[in-house]
Order: sequence, then C-alpha cells, then structure tokens
Amino acid sequence: MAEPIRIALDAMGGDHGVTEAMRGAARLSLEDSDIHVLCVGDVAAMDAVLGETQHDPSRLTLVRSGGAVPMEARPRTALAELPSCSVLTAARVVEDGGADALVSAGNTGATVLSAAETFSILPGIRRAALASVYPTAQPHGPKGDPFALMLDVGATLHATAEDLVGFALMGTAYSSVVSEIASPRVALLSNGAEASKGTAAIVDAHGRLLDGPLHFSGNVEGLDIPKGSVDVIVCDGFLGNVVLKMLEGMGDVLSSLAAEASARRLQWRIGLSMLSGGLREIQRLTDWKMYGGAPLLGFDRVVIKAHGRSEAGAIRNAIKVAAKTVRGDLLGRIEDGVSALRLDGSP
Amino acid sequence: MAEPIRIALDAMGGDHGVTEAMRGAARLSLEDSDIHVLCVGDVAAMDAVLGETQHDPSRLTLVRSGGAVPMEARPRTALAELPSCSVLTAARVVEDGGADALVSAGNTGATVLSAAETFSILPGIRRAALASVYPTAQPHGPKGDPFALMLDVGATLHATAEDLVGFALMGTAYSSVVSEIASPRVALLSNGAEASKGTAAIVDAHGRLLDGPLHFSGNVEGLDIPKGSVDVIVCDGFLGNVVLKMLEGMGDVLSSLAAEASARRLQWRIGLSMLSGGLREIQRLTDWKMYGGAPLLGFDRVVIKAHGRSEAGAIRNAIKVAAKTVRGDLLGRIEDGVSALRLDGSP
Repeated sequence: MAEPIRIALDAMGGDHGVTEAMRGAARLSLEDSDIHVLCVGDVAAMDAVLGETQHDPSRLTLVRSGGAVPMEARPRTALAELPSCSVLTAARVVEDGGADALVSAGNTGATVLSAAETFSILPGIRRAALASVYPTAQPHGPKGDPFALMLDVGATLHATAEDLVGFALMGTAYSSVVSEIASPRVALLSNGAEASKGTAAIVDAHGRLLDGPLHFSGNVEGLDIPKGSVDVIVCDGFLGNVVLKMLEGMGDVLSSLAAEASARRLQWRIGLSMLSGGLREIQRLTDWKMYGGAPLLGFDRVVIKAHGRSEAGAIRNAIKVAAKTVRGDLLGRIEDGVSALRLDGSP
Repeated sequence: MAEPIRIALDAMGGDHGVTEAMRGAARLSLEDSDIHVLCVGDVAAMDAVLGETQHDPSRLTLVRSGGAVPMEARPRTALAELPSCSVLTAARVVEDGGADALVSAGNTGATVLSAAETFSILPGIRRAALASVYPTAQPHGPKGDPFALMLDVGATLHATAEDLVGFALMGTAYSSVVSEIASPRVALLSNGAEASKGTAAIVDAHGRLLDGPLHFSGNVEGLDIPKGSVDVIVCDGFLGNVVLKMLEGMGDVLSSLAAEASARRLQWRIGLSMLSGGLREIQRLTDWKMYGGAPLLGFDRVVIKAHGRSEAGAIRNAIKVAAKTVRGDLLGRIEDGVSALRLDGSP
C-alpha cells in the first residue's frame, strides 16, 4: 500500500473551534485509510474531543501549539503576538516536511499570512490567489460537479496581466485535479465578450492566453457566473471579493426567504414540503460554502482554507480535497504550466 | 391645471420594436392626464399600431424620423449611418425644448451616444453614469420600494474619485425624487467596510464623501447588494456592469429552475401552485428589469433607458418615471448637490 497522505489541520480555527475540527478529523479517520491527519492545537482540548468521539487513533496525531488566532483579529498583529499559534505551527509542520498540505478553517487573513511567511511562491508565479468554488446552473466535468471555480477572490487586490495569466494556469491545474476535468475551460471576467473589453490588464492577459496552451474561452460576463458556462473564472481579488460575497448574500436572501415563508404560512409550508427537490436546490445555492473549501494557490505547499462556518462534515471534506490535490500532484501540474506558458522567462 | 410633462419616446427601439412601444404610450394616454408623449419613429408604422390600440389622441403626438438603430449594431457606426434615426431625432426634440425628457428601449450604446452628442454634461459633473434599480431583500423609503439603485453600470468604465463622488450625488438626487426617500443612504462598493479598503479612487472618494453633505454610509460589500442595506450603491462602470449582469443571470437561473421543475414533476407542480406568494417573490427577482428603466445621469436633460426586453407595461412605466423626474426637478437637485459638494470649484 502507498504511503498515506499527511494533512496538517489547524484544529483551533473556525467559528466552531476545536470541537468541529476534531470531529471532522475523527470522522475521516474511520472512513479513509489513505489519509493521516496531524491535528495542531491545544492538546488537552483536542484530546477531550477525541475522548467523546469515535475515531481511529492510528490515523490521527496530535501536535502541540500555543494559542489560536481569533476569527475577527487583525492577521498581522495576531501572528506577531502569537508566534506559536495553531495555524502558524501547522504551516511549519508542512514546511518541515512533516505533512503534505495545510488545512485551516480559521481567520482567512492569518492563514494567507502564515503561508506567505512560511512557504515560498512557486517559480514563475508572481502572486498568490485564493480560489473558491461556487454553485452554477450547468454541471462541470465527468463527475457533473454543480460547481465552478473562481480566482482570485481576495488574496491579490490588483492583478497585473501576468498575475491573471498565473491565476488562469493555477485554476486550470486545480480544476483538472479536483474536478477531474481533462481540459478545463478557463475565461477572464470582463464587461463584454470581445477581446478589447475590460481593463488594460484584462486586455493584455486575453492576448497572452489566446497564444497559450490553456483551454482559453475568452472573456465571460456577469451573466455567465451563475450559469457556469466555463469551469474556471479569472479576475482580480477586488472584483472576485465583491462577486463571491454577492453570491453569499444571494444565498442568505434565498434561504431566509424560504425560512420565513415556511415559518409564517401554512400554505407556504405545505408548498415547501412538496418541493423537496427544489429545497435541495435552494440548499445547494445557500450551503455551498460548506463544501470543499477554498484553495490558496501559488505557494510551494498546498493550502486549503475551509469556510469559517465549517462543521465536522465540511472539515472532513476540506481534508479530503487537500489529500486529493497531493495525490493528483497539483504543484507539479502548476510547474508544468509555468514552463508551457513561459512564465519562468524561458524562451 | 399645470402644463403636461412632455416625453419624447424613441418608438422604434427595443426587442419588440414599434408595437410594444406604441402600445405602452397608448395605454398611458388613457390613464394619466399629466403626460404628453411625442412618439418618434416611422409614422406609418406608429399609426398602424394606434389604429389597432385604444388610446387618447389628444395626449400622443407622432414625430417623423428616418431609420432605427438595430439592437446589436455598433453604436458609433450606426449613428453615423443613420443621422436621422429615431433615438437621435428624439434626443434633438428634447434638446430643442420640444420635450422635457427622453425615453428609449433601444440599443443602450446608441442611447448613451445620442445623449452625449446632443446634450451637455451638467456643470461640475465630469462623467455620465447609467444607473439601474435592482431587487433587494430589504424595502426602501416611505413607499417600501423593494429596489435599490446602483450606478455606474456601464457608462464610465474607469471612474476617478471625483467621478464616484458625482455618481453618489446623482444617485442620491434620483433616489430622493423617484423613491421619495428624504435622505437616501449612499455607499461605495468595496472589498471591506473600512475606509482604507478598495482601490485608490474608492479610498479617496470615501474621504470626500465623509466630509460632504450626503447621507454617506461608508463602504458596503458584495453581501450588501442583495440585502439592500443602503438605498444607493456607487461603483465604477466595470464593476457595476459585472454585478448587474450577474444579478440578471441569477434571475435567469432561478426562473429556469422554476419553469423546468414545474414542467417536469407533478409534485413540483403542486408545490409551486401552492407557493403563489413565493412565485411572486421569484418573479420579482427575475422580472425586475422590466420595471422602471435605467436613468442615464449627468446630462442637462433627463434620459431614461428602458430595458431592451420591455413590453408595453414596462414602456409605460419608463415614461411615468421620466415624467416623475421632471416633476421632481431631478436636474435642479443635482445642480444644488454640485454646489453643496463644491464640485463646481466653488470655495
């Protein structure tokens, strides 16, 4: 049997803290023989959860750290004050070769900063990108995933043309490994389909991607985001942040609409109970942030940022996604893409 | 009785052309005694529609024009080739004082360009903005409008800080006249609530608006767009275009979801039929582009761009909105704001 994939889990991060993180790791230990989780955090607290949760002790290791970054803390200040906090310790475990990838549901800024302080940017990649899956009307790839990928959603506010090309490459590599799409369709988000539309960086990136080896579908518009007409959408972190939060807001509005209606009116309630398929659809449109997690791409180590609201099931999924990217050699694929796109300065 | 408000209607524009435009004008002529519509287009075609449609001939005038800009035409080329087309002729009628405002459901670019070629930019305003209402979870103003206003959504791709301040002012004026909100809450769309978040133009505009006389609510994020936590959201035309088309795409996805479900499954069908209130909500989230129309702001004449898909009811609404802006002295309010914000260079 192959060596297990080792995932370092920041077990203290996330809205639900150590309880849900450890429950997620425990659940996974019972079902997957291929993954070993190094749980980083307050050992007594982690042990207490394990004492109440069924798990396979041969697939879990506890690693001691000091303190945890609060969800609302300022990342730079918090990391300076807590130099041996769980997320930074987990990153160091990965950097030292003790684990293959990092998973955290904690403070996003602190996770990005821990990666930046601990890992190196891959050769040929200029700026890191935080990617996110989001729900689409159209399915994607051989598994029929009802999700597409968007990046950057907040790591790099202003992206140059070269940054955007790097994001397109990294998104393609991630989508091919995780969604198992042989040749993911990748597009730039702009204000029109024509090559001349958009900011100077978008127009320049468009030209470079047309000449490159990726499956470039040109520009897409806002309409295409919910439709899901491509597999990977590329934009700068400012635009991606607005779009992603807007999708989240739409989900909140839809679910509160449904909840309110169901609480208030009998007729609504009967209608809703008959709409089980429809409710599942609405749930998919609202709970999507719980599934999978958001990869932080561009470093020489894999980082998966699980949503802060993650419960045990979502933590388990994020660990599985991280293991899948290691197994599928995500970083090797990005390196190959750097050469093919000549981002490393090769002639 | 006061003089009627005179609206010049481009009667040839829109996906449904002269038929729906004239039906809208005809319907309005029967119900409102305060508005006179100058219908600009092919006189024989307009007359043919009136021949089959109940109307009040004392409130409709026909104005002859030559040709119409196709919906998919390139605006600059089309206007050069059709110098007496309906939208340009209608704009000239307004410029010459023959009407108080312009309404068109035609090619958006051609409408914007006709305004730019015919009207003047208001003193102190640097760039025009196309605004759009969109549906929100929270109601707005004394009428409880389930809509908020966003601008710019496509007229000015790159906005400076001064442009953004101008948009905030114009959006405030429009919202106070049309939604009858005494002091509309206006905010900048950014990637975080803090004053330091966003592009240099946003940070600069934030400082200027904090010092100014508007009801400035600071920055809002993507989450706030569907929630509707403010009355007016300000952004550059690139971002606004992506956001607006995304809202449109979400509406399309929701309505096709509902239509598909209703066609396919009896259980769904029964569920949907009981959800009459819910369906009305979904309809509001999908058909909103039909109501009201989008004001083009910044010129010394009022221009209302009705959606291309507008049918008679939407045309009628757009004409009523245009008349309301004239009656409420929208342009005077913008001019007052220019002085109050010292955009005219006054000390």
